[in-house]
Amino acid sequence: MNESTPTQLQPEMPPTRWGDPAHAAPLPEGVRDLVGLVFSLGDTPAREDVQVPASHLAPELVDLLRAAIGDDHVVLDDATRRLRTRGKSTPDLLRQRSGDLADAPDVVVRPGSHDDVQAILDIAQEHRIAVVPFGGGTAVTGGLVAQRDGFAGIVSLDLGRMRSLLALDPVSSTATLGPGLRGPEAEALLAEHGLMLGHFPQSFEFATIGGFAATRSSGQSSAGYGRFDAMVVGLRAATPKGEVRLGGTSPSNASGPDLRELFLGSEGAFGVITEVTVRVRPLPEVKEYEGWQWPSFEAGAAAMRALAQGDLLPTVLRLSDENETAINLARPDAIGGEGAGGCLMITGYEGTPSATAAKKAAVTEALAALGGTPLGTEPGEAWAAGRFDAPYLRDALLDVGVLVETLETVTFWSNRDRLYGAVKAALEGALGEGTMVLCHISHVYATGCSLYFTIAAAGGDQPLERWLEAKRAANDAIVASGASITHHHAVGTDHKGWLTPEIGDVGVDILRAVKRELDPAGILNPGVLIP
Amino acid sequence: MNESTPTQLQPEMPPTRWGDPAHAAPLPEGVRDLVGLVFSLGDTPAREDVQVPASHLAPELVDLLRAAIGDDHVVLDDATRRLRTRGKSTPDLLRQRSGDLADAPDVVVRPGSHDDVQAILDIAQEHRIAVVPFGGGTAVTGGLVAQRDGFAGIVSLDLGRMRSLLALDPVSSTATLGPGLRGPEAEALLAEHGLMLGHFPQSFEFATIGGFAATRSSGQSSAGYGRFDAMVVGLRAATPKGEVRLGGTSPSNASGPDLRELFLGSEGAFGVITEVTVRVRPLPEVKEYEGWQWPSFEAGAAAMRALAQGDLLPTVLRLSDENETAINLARPDAIGGEGAGGCLMITGYEGTPSATAAKKAAVTEALAALGGTPLGTEPGEAWAAGRFDAPYLRDALLDVGVLVETLETVTFWSNRDRLYGAVKAALEGALGEGTMVLCHISHVYATGCSLYFTIAAAGGDQPLERWLEAKRAANDAIVASGASITHHHAVGTDHKGWLTPEIGDVGVDILRAVKRELDPAGILNPGVLIP
Repeated sequence: MNESTPTQLQPEMPPTRWGDPAHAAPLPEGVRDLVGLVFSLGDTPAREDVQVPASHLAPELVDLLRAAIGDDHVVLDDATRRLRTRGKSTPDLLRQRSGDLADAPDVVVRPGSHDDVQAILDIAQEHRIAVVPFGGGTAVTGGLVAQRDGFAGIVSLDLGRMRSLLALDPVSSTATLGPGLRGPEAEALLAEHGLMLGHFPQSFEFATIGGFAATRSSGQSSAGYGRFDAMVVGLRAATPKGEVRLGGTSPSNASGPDLRELFLGSEGAFGVITEVTVRVRPLPEVKEYEGWQWPSFEAGAAAMRALAQGDLLPTVLRLSDENETAINLARPDAIGGEGAGGCLMITGYEGTPSATAAKKAAVTEALAALGGTPLGTEPGEAWAAGRFDAPYLRDALLDVGVLVETLETVTFWSNRDRLYGAVKAALEGALGEGTMVLCHISHVYATGCSLYFTIAAAGGDQPLERWLEAKRAANDAIVASGASITHHHAVGTDHKGWLTPEIGDVGVDILRAVKRELDPAGILNPGVLIP
Repeated sequence: MNESTPTQLQPEMPPTRWGDPAHAAPLPEGVRDLVGLVFSLGDTPAREDVQVPASHLAPELVDLLRAAIGDDHVVLDDATRRLRTRGKSTPDLLRQRSGDLADAPDVVVRPGSHDDVQAILDIAQEHRIAVVPFGGGTAVTGGLVAQRDGFAGIVSLDLGRMRSLLALDPVSSTATLGPGLRGPEAEALLAEHGLMLGHFPQSFEFATIGGFAATRSSGQSSAGYGRFDAMVVGLRAATPKGEVRLGGTSPSNASGPDLRELFLGSEGAFGVITEVTVRVRPLPEVKEYEGWQWPSFEAGAAAMRALAQGDLLPTVLRLSDENETAINLARPDAIGGEGAGGCLMITGYEGTPSATAAKKAAVTEALAALGGTPLGTEPGEAWAAGRFDAPYLRDALLDVGVLVETLETVTFWSNRDRLYGAVKAALEGALGEGTMVLCHISHVYATGCSLYFTIAAAGGDQPLERWLEAKRAANDAIVASGASITHHHAVGTDHKGWLTPEIGDVGVDILRAVKRELDPAGILNPGVLIP
């Protein structure tokens, strides 16, 4: 197979909003009326008269970068630097909307190869330039906010040119992908060979392969296809100490510690991932999504647990709590409409007709026996149609002064209910009356599950400060409940202060030791991940 | 649940042989005759007039250890030190049989708790005593052979007293096990709760939970229940830098690199694993094992690949090549009998009656469509009956001067045939005419599979040297083929020289950096794992 690259460039996301501007829309009138019953609506558009701070990087350093990877690929203009400023969390958007661009990089570099990345790191190490790897820019935990102090400047290392299908081994079902490939681009290249990856997080349309690996992303089909880290067979990374290639010999082995697992989730702090080899699968011939109704979140969660522990998981499995079911967040067009009540579960089946039919029959029998009521395909199809749309709704709500954000965690099944209550109480306590806290479970394991919260509250005069206080309260509640600070959003800068209780002092010391070894000058995404 | 501990102690393995002396038997007459057709048989019993080197550890250091964990748990007698000398590879046995006890530890310590282990490490660090963690003593790659130079002595840290079921969370399906529990002990404790772990390597009867974790063991039911590392949810370890607890918050998360994966496979070089939390399952109601015949190793392997890539794996799946099928090694009582020809596959199904029936029907349909011939349950039951017996046969063959050993590797499906040929040729080339090289596949993944070789050759005058040369040739062939130096036997000292090509110089630097951080004095299993 020859290397192949997508021919069409996907759109850039605007600095102050999510997604493709062509898909953005104001709040539907009906939703606006409904939201207005709960929150006082204002008109808080993003400021456009913003000033991007001047680039601080010395011209001779810019020249070095240009000499290394070519003049065209070293970009200093304000518009590009604004686009590479932070990610897409609500705090990121609020700061962009208010015109705060203090975290803008000094220069954006666009390497075209592993060797280009290595050359940039070599220059950065020698001249103490901070390097922030940039994939799709969909980070929601401050992973693109590097520390500036002590550095000659900040380089945004944009991987967008490294977007090829580099190798395909159809016998072994593996594909080697460039880190800058966005989700749909990777799937399109694989689909030419009848294959797919099957990783569909909410950020799918804009997030990249390298980002999925660096943050341990998990997608909406994780029940069937696994977390992204579980799809990864091998990877290549550039570090200040040189090249690392891992997983090239075998799927799994006993050749000591699994060092792939050190780079997965390393968020650019140990190296820049330049190639990712993943397991691929045949494109599914059949895709079916259904709804099930459960009398309570508890009952639905118990059913999910039974499926996971019985190794009987559909491809997609998610469950909304009573609040999320009532709001019907998955269907912005139908918010406020008549819901089915109780808790809505979505089950999805993908694969060959025979395997899909067999799995569906077994799951259906199990769920019915556990007390679920089948709702047919309509809720499932509606979920599938809107599965990537929630961030657009957030923009529309921010436009009218409503604060909207999400956060997520994961714990063991026996701790699920306690964690759920603690996080809900912390958010409601911090944000006050009228706050809406919705929750769903969208990733399950034999031993536990994730909890994903969506929060809507009055923005008030200081929405950013209000949210940061609520987020701190939620993080504290998560740690106090013995759960993990993040299931799939990663650590970034926003969760860093809560990592030590999870991995312990010695765990942090290990991360620091690896960092010192690979990045002795500390130039890689400084301030991110490691407490 | 209260902590529970097995009431009966399992037998010690003799220093020169595998297993329970009560189960050992000389070569059956028929087999002896057959083997005699190929090899000239001698009578090479183990020497019993052996001298254990005197303990070198200074009495004041022995006193410190006694003060830390109690006089009864610090053992210096020759018989015990002989039992804690090396593991059970053929080189280990040949050295024991020839009376070479140069690697005997100076003292055997038997901690009863995590705190005991920590106290031992603190003393060892201060006084530069090498510490070799000892679980079941089943190591086959030199993992129990520590470097003596530069140390005040060698302590064998025997985890045999730490053999409790420490905690059980039936809702989350997790159990926390002491590292010194042998396979059958752990299963018996879980069976009291209707649960099982499901890890059945050939060493099952003697190997321990801590050893499974420290070496990334993989069992005969890995197709259904996964590798041991995949069963591990959490672990606790004592290191010279202090305690590490990992995985306590959740099954999986995005809280940075997965540090559990650094301790899994660390072979005692980073710390001593003192607790392992694993996923458990309900005891299977049904167990069925069947045989299938394939016209060739290639055809059988292609069928295994189809099952793995179709996510349609039975609980047990293994395939013998033509030679192994002809020899029928799995059935010592029937060696030389009339075989079915071709290649024998064993499929096993365990679980609830309905799940087992459904899986079996789907697998049967797939295998028949791929060209397999069903042989019914007889070959499957025969395999199950003898599944842990091969090492006893090795002893009987060593007794008559035949050299027998195994080695294993893993690669991607597209490289399987090349690897198979290269390793076979290397072994036959090194050991000369009349060498028998048998192979089976017993661990499969969507992207690749293991290859497990059994070798029988004339021992000659210098069987140890003959084998070490053949092993070097096999290791070279594995590395030259781009495969992994070990699928589930670990690195130890025997594979250490071949690790660098697999993980690269930077990978080795990472291992060294972690080692320096956790074990600055280098007392933990020195010379093992890290090149």
